[in-house]
Amino acid sequence: MDERIIAEILKFRDERGWKQYHNPKDLAISLSLEVAELLENFQWSSSEEAVSKRIPNIREELADVLIYSVLFAEAVGLDLNDIIMEKLSMNNQKYPIEKAFGKKEKYTEL
Amino acid sequence: MDERIIAEILKFRDERGWKQYHNPKDLAISLSLEVAELLENFQWSSSEEAVSKRIPNIREELADVLIYSVLFAEAVGLDLNDIIMEKLSMNNQKYPIEKAFGKKEKYTEL
Amino acid sequence: MDERIIAEILKFRDERGWKQYHNPKDLAISLSLEVAELLENFQWSSSEEAVSKRIPNIREELADVLIYSVLFAEAVGLDLNDIIMEKLSMNNQKYPIEKAFGKKEKYTEL
Amino acid sequence: MDERIIAEILKFRDERGWKQYHNPKDLAISLSLEVAELLENFQWSSSEEAVSKRIPNIREELADVLIYSVLFAEAVGLDLNDIIMEKLSMNNQKYPIEKAFGKKEKYTEL
Repeated sequence: MDERIIAEILKFRDERGWKQYHNPKDLAISLSLEVAELLENFQWSSSEEAVSKRIPNIREELADVLIYSVLFAEAVGLDLNDIIMEKLSMNNQKYPIEKAFGKKEKYTEL
Repeated sequence: MDERIIAEILKFRDERGWKQYHNPKDLAISLSLEVAELLENFQWSSSEEAVSKRIPNIREELADVLIYSVLFAEAVGLDLNDIIMEKLSMNNQKYPIEKAFGKKEKYTEL
Repeated sequence: MDERIIAEILKFRDERGWKQYHNPKDLAISLSLEVAELLENFQWSSSEEAVSKRIPNIREELADVLIYSVLFAEAVGLDLNDIIMEKLSMNNQKYPIEKAFGKKEKYTEL
Repeated sequence: MDERIIAEILKFRDERGWKQYHNPKDLAISLSLEVAELLENFQWSSSEEAVSKRIPNIREELADVLIYSVLFAEAVGLDLNDIIMEKLSMNNQKYPIEKAFGKKEKYTEL
């Protein structure tokens, strides 16, 4: 996800004077709504069926999740790259390769 | 979000042999769980209170949302930049600046 | 769900002086968090596996969903029986038996 | 929520031959989608604004949450009254009145 794309998302918001509504709590709620719209494609369906029939909506809803993630990060002052590298580092502690390889269990159950 | 970061996310998954579990339906469910963990920081709290007290967890949970978004996109074969530009273009049709400026209403109510 | 059970839920809240926090928006957020905790039992698992291994947590989280539903209804002034009968009546219009029998499609696709 | 209402919900399902789709995982996903639709009424709005403008949709979506809760409980074999009383009892241990009165903090922070 380019810096250029992030700039487009923020420009879209500012051209419409929407920043006034974008407090972190309502942005987190928005993220929740968009993820539900993505998940709806899989209701009563297997992954295969959903992906074969509903790619246009899946593309749209994942894009909404990413757009709101960018807006949330900007509202709170977070750098996407930094927080991801930090979390991968934490996950490496919780899920060391030798313990976690091939296992789906949560770290509390390893 | 660099290409380099996306590569780190996929490498983390593959070092642990986790791709076998990453079908799109369960990845969409995972996205839903992580967004709820982000939203939890705002339960019973204003944006201000949440941001002043819970930044470490907010950073962690937003990172999880981004990580699962990358894993989902890779599992389904979607390009993050493409789908975002496509959605911004659709949103421009639904929310033309002259109609939507300063308004929070959904496009169906404009 | 007895009237007696609903009374216990409200009494639990009032014994702890919690009504002051129970505005509808935060109660809707709470419902969202509890449903995610219920759904977590099914992450990476089939229905069969989740039900065979995680019934205690499933019981707990579904109870939380019901408890917050009762608290939300009380905060907004809704009667559970009334709103359910109203929705079943609406659903009967959207999903008449002759059109909907055996089909999982949304009414917009029938 | 009467036994009679629960019977109506199950009859509605069976008249339409829908039980075949109602595995617990997809019912948990459905609960997640309906809670999001309830929460949507509060996006960008205070509780007061949402309740003054959107009661019809709030009634509808809370009804859907209750309907899916009943369907989920029936699919898994849970008694609504039992699980609620059990959870209130657990909550009484986590949130004794003398420690929890007037406080919104999670039990881990009391």
